[in-house]
Amino acid sequence: MKFSCLQDNINKGLIQVSRISTTKSTLPILENVLIKTEGGRLKLVTTDLEAVIIQWIGGKVEKEGSLTIPCKLLSEYVNSLPNNKIELKSADNVDLSISTEEYEANFKGQSAEDFPIIPEVKSNTFTSIKAKNLSEALSEVVYAAAIDESRPVLAGVLFSFEKNSLKLAATDSYRLAEKKIALKSNVSSSLKIIIPARTISELQRILADIDEDVEIKIGESQVLFHSKNTDVIARLIDGNFPDYEKIIPEQHSTKATIAKDKFINIVKVASLFAKEGGNNIKIKLSPKGKMIVSATTSQVGDNVSQTEAEVEGVEGEISFNARYLLDVLGNLKVPKVSLEISGKLKPAALKPEGKSDYLHIIMPLST
Amino acid sequence: MKFSCLQDNINKGLIQVSRISTTKSTLPILENVLIKTEGGRLKLVTTDLEAVIIQWIGGKVEKEGSLTIPCKLLSEYVNSLPNNKIELKSADNVDLSISTEEYEANFKGQSAEDFPIIPEVKSNTFTSIKAKNLSEALSEVVYAAAIDESRPVLAGVLFSFEKNSLKLAATDSYRLAEKKIALKSNVSSSLKIIIPARTISELQRILADIDEDVEIKIGESQVLFHSKNTDVIARLIDGNFPDYEKIIPEQHSTKATIAKDKFINIVKVASLFAKEGGNNIKIKLSPKGKMIVSATTSQVGDNVSQTEAEVEGVEGEISFNARYLLDVLGNLKVPKVSLEISGKLKPAALKPEGKSDYLHIIMPLST
Repeated sequence: MKFSCLQDNINKGLIQVSRISTTKSTLPILENVLIKTEGGRLKLVTTDLEAVIIQWIGGKVEKEGSLTIPCKLLSEYVNSLPNNKIELKSADNVDLSISTEEYEANFKGQSAEDFPIIPEVKSNTFTSIKAKNLSEALSEVVYAAAIDESRPVLAGVLFSFEKNSLKLAATDSYRLAEKKIALKSNVSSSLKIIIPARTISELQRILADIDEDVEIKIGESQVLFHSKNTDVIARLIDGNFPDYEKIIPEQHSTKATIAKDKFINIVKVASLFAKEGGNNIKIKLSPKGKMIVSATTSQVGDNVSQTEAEVEGVEGEISFNARYLLDVLGNLKVPKVSLEISGKLKPAALKPEGKSDYLHIIMPLST
Repeated sequence: MKFSCLQDNINKGLIQVSRISTTKSTLPILENVLIKTEGGRLKLVTTDLEAVIIQWIGGKVEKEGSLTIPCKLLSEYVNSLPNNKIELKSADNVDLSISTEEYEANFKGQSAEDFPIIPEVKSNTFTSIKAKNLSEALSEVVYAAAIDESRPVLAGVLFSFEKNSLKLAATDSYRLAEKKIALKSNVSSSLKIIIPARTISELQRILADIDEDVEIKIGESQVLFHSKNTDVIARLIDGNFPDYEKIIPEQHSTKATIAKDKFINIVKVASLFAKEGGNNIKIKLSPKGKMIVSATTSQVGDNVSQTEAEVEGVEGEISFNARYLLDVLGNLKVPKVSLEISGKLKPAALKPEGKSDYLHIIMPLST
């Protein structure tokens, strides 16, 4: 193999594929990045067996070849080099030499034949979306998925395609996030797929750096997100996503509209006193135009903070896990949010003020 | 107790005293900050029994009193409040209420009588130094002290006062850092004290924020660093600091002058390949005007990097622990440094180019 390009090209590619290369895997080859000349470009591939990231690097292929090298070391090394011409060379397609004018290194590698087989998704393009829009939408739902994988579908994000709309949803059964995106044209048929939340987190970061549309191709058990220089292949989770729409409250008895930053601050302050009490904070909405947040732990003390709010409806009171509130408030990019409640024990809704494409439901704590 | 001031005043004080309040001490009262009205100000005190930090806060004392409150919680709470008027109140000198217009909290506390007795250093001022200068000088030596306390004097920083000069030194026996500071006037007598490096690290950060002279008062077993709003009391380490001056090389066979950032980069790059080999990197100084840095680990690979250097004397070669080089290079605030060596197994000297107030000695590795 012999390939040359500018340091910056391959550096950016290595940063992307490093996202899923593990450093302590039971299968040591998964710590490696597969490097392969293909179609006049260099292809970098990493996988954790759940997901695959592929990056194509433009440059000059002088001799075809392939091999695998520990990804973290290679990525750190290339990252330290100046942005000049860099040459990759291998005589035996196992070990790799990298050289620039002032730097030279030899990496012990492993043959490309030892690398896991990368699944192919041969389906036609199902739809395509602006990468940055999809990235932003994913960031607003993914944190609501379950961490624990005891119910696999809850550790995933639902993509629900219907006509010219994509609905994304995630829930850990204590809270639910749903985001709608408009597609440029109708999809050929309605379709629901569930993708592991861990892969979605990486996909979200990768798409944030892509300035074009991403094509979505859906296979039997995999989905491919394809753009010019980047492919992400994710495993699909088998199973039915809970029919969450029936828990979305249809009405409310109190609605408060609050400046988001102020809301975040008084919840943070209250949560200082709630740590030993399961993060339980109490919110009171007063029609006199106040939101009052309080928390008490017998050993630590108590506190109460208030801020102005536009309150419609009757006086209301409800308790939440402060972390759930901070998660959603921290991910909303609007100046004002509304909180709709309909009783101490009923699910409450949080919405970005003036937008109807996003909805967050939080179950209250019963105290 | 009743005291009021602006949030910013007490916030800054709490940030400083938080530096040594521990959160998991075998003696729980050490997690608390002592709060006491004194001489028309509020006094905040924390201690880990090794060191004491005292901060005075200006404000309005309406009723004298004292108590202790968990420092971390109080500090986080006050830090979250807006910079408006804040009132501290205690009816029983145990629990504390804090209120602003929109926020109110009650903290469970403990009586000031349960707090450790703070040692007093009643000596006259021995000398005084601009706080920021002392802070910067300490940052250039403290990291060379031993972490391990098996030889207590090596886990400390030597302050050696003589005439109008203060020499600071620290060594873990693999490397030595020495910095000289000029004093404004002669000290009354030569004196050497050793202060625990851990306390010095905190002192260094505290002094960096002080825009005035700090007075040094030296007692029997404690030293006091005093300024208008801040006192730091440190324990003195008993024992004799090694007579390090005799290992300082008097001459060298090769001297190289190198751009510091370039030096840091090629050492970092080499160290990527040295991790599994005890961080061992090899440096070659060539009279042809090059510094060549290399590292090899049989399992990982090898690398060699070079940069321009002004080399005087004969060709030289030496091996170092890369971390020691990165520690000193990262702490020097000059564009160029010089490396003086006199053989593979002799101590080498690193100096900031054009400055004679700082010296760093590193023992080579024998490979």
